[in-house]
Amino acid sequence: MSYPHTNSSMLSHNWKLILAYDGTDFHGWQIQPAMPTIQGTLSEAIRQLTGESVLPQGSGRTDAGVHAEGQVASFAINAPLPAQNLRRALNRTLPDSIRVLEAVPVEPNFHARHSAIAKTYMYRVLLCPEEAAVCPPTLTRFWLPISRELDVVNMQSAAAAVIGEHDFASFAASDPDLTTRNQPDAEAPSTIRTIYQSEWQLDQNKLIYTVRGNGFLHHMVRNLVGTFLEIGYGRFTADALPSIIAARDRSAAGPTAPARGLCLVNVEY
Amino acid sequence: MSYPHTNSSMLSHNWKLILAYDGTDFHGWQIQPAMPTIQGTLSEAIRQLTGESVLPQGSGRTDAGVHAEGQVASFAINAPLPAQNLRRALNRTLPDSIRVLEAVPVEPNFHARHSAIAKTYMYRVLLCPEEAAVCPPTLTRFWLPISRELDVVNMQSAAAAVIGEHDFASFAASDPDLTTRNQPDAEAPSTIRTIYQSEWQLDQNKLIYTVRGNGFLHHMVRNLVGTFLEIGYGRFTADALPSIIAARDRSAAGPTAPARGLCLVNVEY
Repeated sequence: MSYPHTNSSMLSHNWKLILAYDGTDFHGWQIQPAMPTIQGTLSEAIRQLTGESVLPQGSGRTDAGVHAEGQVASFAINAPLPAQNLRRALNRTLPDSIRVLEAVPVEPNFHARHSAIAKTYMYRVLLCPEEAAVCPPTLTRFWLPISRELDVVNMQSAAAAVIGEHDFASFAASDPDLTTRNQPDAEAPSTIRTIYQSEWQLDQNKLIYTVRGNGFLHHMVRNLVGTFLEIGYGRFTADALPSIIAARDRSAAGPTAPARGLCLVNVEY
Repeated sequence: MSYPHTNSSMLSHNWKLILAYDGTDFHGWQIQPAMPTIQGTLSEAIRQLTGESVLPQGSGRTDAGVHAEGQVASFAINAPLPAQNLRRALNRTLPDSIRVLEAVPVEPNFHARHSAIAKTYMYRVLLCPEEAAVCPPTLTRFWLPISRELDVVNMQSAAAAVIGEHDFASFAASDPDLTTRNQPDAEAPSTIRTIYQSEWQLDQNKLIYTVRGNGFLHHMVRNLVGTFLEIGYGRFTADALPSIIAARDRSAAGPTAPARGLCLVNVEY
């Protein structure tokens, strides 16, 4: 049974979902034919539950293998449902690897991507010196194990250098279409973003990078992390960041860190 | 290249491996044609590394979906390798879901199953009341989420009742072949086992059953947990255990708890 969206006799209800997922076995957020994706799986769960075909909008597209603890999705459906029921029913329908943490009724003009004002990502590195430790199978889907020695102090000072408003072209994916896809309405796509927090914290063998900003270019966090790791290995100097930013050239920065350690932890509105 | 085991000109080296694995995507320990198994994957990694075809023996066969943090495997190979190299090289060859925690050279007569004198399992339950919580995707492969209320005190007193030497026929898998497969040499297969530790511990929303014994029948831990859960739900009384044991009848006990929460944590020699 399908409720056409044009049926004006029914009130449309706008929803905000806060989602957690293990991205390992998904081909990213964005729906793709014949591939398991977060957006496609969520859309299908909503359809099974309400009979309505909607495409939930995410705050941004996470790449294949990237995780979330606070991704936000929005969509409008006609079916009137208490928020608690929607959350529970979706969690019964979705695979265990995707969980709805909260379902919140929102104003009609709320949009998960357009309304977002800041996002926070974490990148998790597990220090596993080859002589001493391995990455436990319980953590391996969410942490990047690194066996080589890292100069954490240099990584920490480099992380502080990205705070503020900068042109992050050096950290944007080479594909220009991908780079600007979070700004479909912009006439001249900008690679300028403002970073409010950027720090590496070490707790025993757990080394976590936290970055909070008003927006992120495609692959930006993974490219920043790949650059910090080069600094940690000593291949780039600790003060290399300002000149890498100034170069506005992808080839000046380090490689893209693997998706596995990255998690979208929070979106602010 | 393959080194025949009968080549007496070469010394055979006996190895003990301590393994951790995420059993979710494996069809259990035991090798099976065209199915991913822990034993099969480990055998293939050893073959790639040494050119020798061996079938590592486990301390016991974990079922499909059951995990390990301290499974033990033994095998003999001719290739002379330092223990540190064997561990590292196997970890480079194995998938991330299987890790070699330790590789230890052992006496020729060491056998992972025959030499074992005690094993410890944990079963992990995450209390997720429907109104309040969901099982995070980071834990969902290793914890069984339960949303219904459980009487933990009754489960704790029931757990204590299985300590000691008992005939655990009521908790053995119905398949008699499976039940006794850990004792291939016994003339009259026994369902008597001695349990040294059996307790439920609650820490916030994490409820963990730990059981240590001299041996376990097939499905025994999962059948014990399934029975404790029936007690937790109030379907069996808190003092039901002695009569369930005395019945020596599988139908007297509760259902088999899902594999997902079970982990072989330690094997003693």
